[in-house]
Amino acid sequence: MLVIKVGGSAGINYDLVCDDIALLVKEGQPIVLVHGGSHETNVLSEKLGKPPRILTSPQGFTSRYTDAETLDIFAMVYAGKMNTRIVERLQKRGVNAVGLSGLDGRLLEGPRKANVRAVVDGRQVLVRDDFTGKVERVNAALLRLLLDHGYTPVVSPPACSTAGEAINVDGDRAAAMIAAALGAKQLIILSNVPGLLRNFPDERTLIPRIAYDELEQALSFAEGRMKKKVLGASEAIAGGVSQVIFGDARIPRPVFHAMNGAGTVIER
Amino acid sequence: MLVIKVGGSAGINYDLVCDDIALLVKEGQPIVLVHGGSHETNVLSEKLGKPPRILTSPQGFTSRYTDAETLDIFAMVYAGKMNTRIVERLQKRGVNAVGLSGLDGRLLEGPRKANVRAVVDGRQVLVRDDFTGKVERVNAALLRLLLDHGYTPVVSPPACSTAGEAINVDGDRAAAMIAAALGAKQLIILSNVPGLLRNFPDERTLIPRIAYDELEQALSFAEGRMKKKVLGASEAIAGGVSQVIFGDARIPRPVFHAMNGAGTVIER
Repeated sequence: MLVIKVGGSAGINYDLVCDDIALLVKEGQPIVLVHGGSHETNVLSEKLGKPPRILTSPQGFTSRYTDAETLDIFAMVYAGKMNTRIVERLQKRGVNAVGLSGLDGRLLEGPRKANVRAVVDGRQVLVRDDFTGKVERVNAALLRLLLDHGYTPVVSPPACSTAGEAINVDGDRAAAMIAAALGAKQLIILSNVPGLLRNFPDERTLIPRIAYDELEQALSFAEGRMKKKVLGASEAIAGGVSQVIFGDARIPRPVFHAMNGAGTVIER
Repeated sequence: MLVIKVGGSAGINYDLVCDDIALLVKEGQPIVLVHGGSHETNVLSEKLGKPPRILTSPQGFTSRYTDAETLDIFAMVYAGKMNTRIVERLQKRGVNAVGLSGLDGRLLEGPRKANVRAVVDGRQVLVRDDFTGKVERVNAALLRLLLDHGYTPVVSPPACSTAGEAINVDGDRAAAMIAAALGAKQLIILSNVPGLLRNFPDERTLIPRIAYDELEQALSFAEGRMKKKVLGASEAIAGGVSQVIFGDARIPRPVFHAMNGAGTVIER
């Protein structure tokens, strides 16, 4: 079992990722693909006159401020355009993909955190009416049901709150929860950088290998969105995944390169 | 087995439709819900500076001109916002809904019709590069797999071309194909009118009952979007569905009213 997360930043080549997935699925490898959509969401938000607002927590983690209108935009991009176009790419390559959001069958479930602490201009504020949360349960039975019948699940946020509401959750951490719930050996997290960089954005400072007990320290130099990936890696390995690899989704054979250890390999 | 199609026109009350579905699913009724999204698609198209273009065929049927950019907008609204929010409504009501587009598992498959004949200013023209088509095959096994495991499928266009491309298809006719493929007894088609009207929009001219062999004639006075519903009804009954009912999705208990024969009942 292989779980692949492909990010949503600019520069990611989904065709190349889907090329690799098609080869692996044809070899009989069960795969769950999880995808993001942050760049497209920013573009659509701007076009609709609702520019994105990024919240920074007191611990330095960033997240998108998601009121009801933002969640509509988020669902349009993630569950709508991105998911449909990735499923289309896979269908064109002979992979019988099925797209799912975290609401479908309560695939990704967890509590909504309506009040979020954030730092604005150096001061802590409480943001209310945020539709965000954290995945605590994965409906692994639904993924297995589809995999056992020859389908390849393509999963994206939003997730489902305990009360059944659509909530924005972090895709990397959702992928980590899925990998742990399915007992995956590898979790591959692809984005628009070659891996974890000691001095972002200098790609010559790529860290090829991190031990699980060094992850805490890695959080200190991981920039912006990479912080959540490090957190996801830590959660996946705590959940029993053998290896998490941060790979580059801009190059040919992105999945194979990562599977073979190119990028940053994290293991216990 | 009950297949319900709820339209995408302005005025439709999805909360009321979902209230009824929740009651029926709790009683053990297997349901597949198919939904539209035309009104929201028009609104988003206008906002994005890409106003909708409606094509009229030489036979008087209307369809949306769907180039690649329009299909993105279409997928954002149908598979994104509408599908997510309907699944959310059902999850809030305790129904374990799973949203699917026609690409998922090639649920709705058929040939793409890249060249479409249309009448523009009284002249026939050939519109090229249209991503539209017609559903010819339904993956009923996928729907049954989900239903047998306690899930309620919520289905929307786009569909999947034979080559795996996302294509715009008519939702009413897709619902008819699904009802026939599943051997459903009833197909309920809800919209923002009380049923088929002899003189649209005069609601006092509601036709309470039409025999299957009168449907050809009904096509002559069915206005705009109702033409496709009449065509869908005809296809469903030809496919073995006992009864098709056009009901009103603006009133309380919309599904129960239709099931009990309010609206226009079509049977062999």
